[in-house]
Amino acid sequence: MAYDIDKEDLITLYPLETLQKFASDFLLALGASEEETAILVDGLMTASLWWHPGQGQGLEKFFRFHMQVTNGGIVPNANMTWVKEGPSYALLDAAKGFGYVSGHRAMAKAVEKAKVTGIAMVGVRHSNHFGIAGYHALHAAKKGLIGWSFTNAKAEMAPWGSAQVVLGTNPWGIAIPRKDTHAIVLDMALTMSGKGMMRWLMNEGRPMPESWALTPDGQTTTDPAAAMLGPLLPIGEYKGYGLSLITDVLAGVMTGSLFGMSVFQDDTNHDVGHVMMAINPTAFMDQADYDTRLEQLVAEVKGAPAIDPKRPVILPGEVEFQRMGEREANGVPLSRETVEKLRALSAEVNVNCPL
Amino acid sequence: MAYDIDKEDLITLYPLETLQKFASDFLLALGASEEETAILVDGLMTASLWWHPGQGQGLEKFFRFHMQVTNGGIVPNANMTWVKEGPSYALLDAAKGFGYVSGHRAMAKAVEKAKVTGIAMVGVRHSNHFGIAGYHALHAAKKGLIGWSFTNAKAEMAPWGSAQVVLGTNPWGIAIPRKDTHAIVLDMALTMSGKGMMRWLMNEGRPMPESWALTPDGQTTTDPAAAMLGPLLPIGEYKGYGLSLITDVLAGVMTGSLFGMSVFQDDTNHDVGHVMMAINPTAFMDQADYDTRLEQLVAEVKGAPAIDPKRPVILPGEVEFQRMGEREANGVPLSRETVEKLRALSAEVNVNCPL
Repeated sequence: MAYDIDKEDLITLYPLETLQKFASDFLLALGASEEETAILVDGLMTASLWWHPGQGQGLEKFFRFHMQVTNGGIVPNANMTWVKEGPSYALLDAAKGFGYVSGHRAMAKAVEKAKVTGIAMVGVRHSNHFGIAGYHALHAAKKGLIGWSFTNAKAEMAPWGSAQVVLGTNPWGIAIPRKDTHAIVLDMALTMSGKGMMRWLMNEGRPMPESWALTPDGQTTTDPAAAMLGPLLPIGEYKGYGLSLITDVLAGVMTGSLFGMSVFQDDTNHDVGHVMMAINPTAFMDQADYDTRLEQLVAEVKGAPAIDPKRPVILPGEVEFQRMGEREANGVPLSRETVEKLRALSAEVNVNCPL
Repeated sequence: MAYDIDKEDLITLYPLETLQKFASDFLLALGASEEETAILVDGLMTASLWWHPGQGQGLEKFFRFHMQVTNGGIVPNANMTWVKEGPSYALLDAAKGFGYVSGHRAMAKAVEKAKVTGIAMVGVRHSNHFGIAGYHALHAAKKGLIGWSFTNAKAEMAPWGSAQVVLGTNPWGIAIPRKDTHAIVLDMALTMSGKGMMRWLMNEGRPMPESWALTPDGQTTTDPAAAMLGPLLPIGEYKGYGLSLITDVLAGVMTGSLFGMSVFQDDTNHDVGHVMMAINPTAFMDQADYDTRLEQLVAEVKGAPAIDPKRPVILPGEVEFQRMGEREANGVPLSRETVEKLRALSAEVNVNCPL
């Protein structure tokens, strides 16, 4: 299932460079440093190239950034500090800075350490929404390492058997480097779906799978409206609940951030925690052997015949990289509603809007 | 859903000590060393205390051990060697030895290294079925570290969108240490269920959830018989497919074991791969703070009201530890069919059978 946005005529395509320049101007105006701006623009452009406008991960983030910079929830050019460091670990205090930036620095540190020791884990405390989990994992893969990013998030999932939300969707990104081609990038929440997709189905008047969410009193339903205030359901039922709990132990409890029902509740202090892990395959195996063996596995996977011949088997991330290529060539979609809001916001913060 | 074995009168309870002694005698007779025997007995007893007889993880393993030791698939007292080692990684060649033993040694090494460096990952190649994933993870938790075990396994899952099996259920065990009480232990396959549970439902004449498995030609079904030769379905649909693929990259591709469709196909050479990871929470946070914060999260989770008041929210592993306590007090269940087969096998290998 996918957003049918491409069918709509409420979408305009813009050249990537136009959005890059606009994002850079906007973030500098918010007070981000040059380095932060470069990281943020790269992250937001990747989101714009990979994902659909309705998913809110591209320039739509500007509204939240502006709101939180204004209320003190995000501190541009924050004084982030390394509070712990050892051979294969480190802990970054993000000091309420941008999540994209703290996540980027943490993964860079994890990669640096894993190259020496084989594997490393870097935690981040007192952070904000870090964007796309798979994007952070991809940073490691671009350096030839396996990347794995975890974050906690606002409570939207109930412990299995309850309808009271305690745990987040707690997204994971895992990226596996491949020779001469895009990495395998799995980017996933630990819930079957999210409120955004449910809202879209509701607006379209369509039912949702019963496995997605419960009503607030814990009943199953296929009506997205009936479940909008209820808990999202975890992948694999009690299994996804366990994975979300463990993610909160790593990203929340162990880093010193908020966790459980407290995280992401106060817009002036989200206090999200992340964990970035990098694994060096060449610690275990020669690069050439690893490459050959990985391509053998990929060939077996991609060689599996499709149930529906029109939908061949794809690797995690393959759709996103294909979309990226198309958009780099043809332009990046923005909804007209977003464009109008971005124009108004640009005027408010005195930034030239090229849209 | 659970096996209803406790209702059946085909079960006999035996004192734990009786089974321990029997297992020890049997394994020594197969040629296992004293050290291997101690590891194997501990693993098999944990399985017997945690799981149900029909799940085949307790003394039922004897039949497979005997078969594979006889045909050369398992080499007792194998000459396992460390083929790679660095600050936070190592790679063990299990030389076709017992999977319980190689997994145990690998996790012990991961713990030893993670205590120094913060996190460590140890791979195992040329191994056999390692028993319960959560059991290996628990070893780390017993030392105060977070343990995470991965293994590849026989292809029973299709890439999402195909019905051809390429990937295994590739179980994970994750254990989180808690102060003064049992660890949180998540032990899970990356499929919604397994063939054993489907076979049980089939024999009971009961339907299965549509999310469990497909027919061999890729149709959905609630008839376990119709899906017995088809692929198991992953947790979270394409998400579980991605997790299984990534697990095979870590445990199969990266360790130098078989992977994809090749692993576990030949009883004389399963060539399974495992990966053991240990994370030291005290690298990131003082022990007392970690303990306090973890118990706060546990309290939030366990405080969530149950939808069905008779089924309160539980932590991963809680059922198993409760069952363990009951069985240590009252005896360990074995089905009469298993007991009869164990008597015959004991006679064959000249071991006294106390059952």
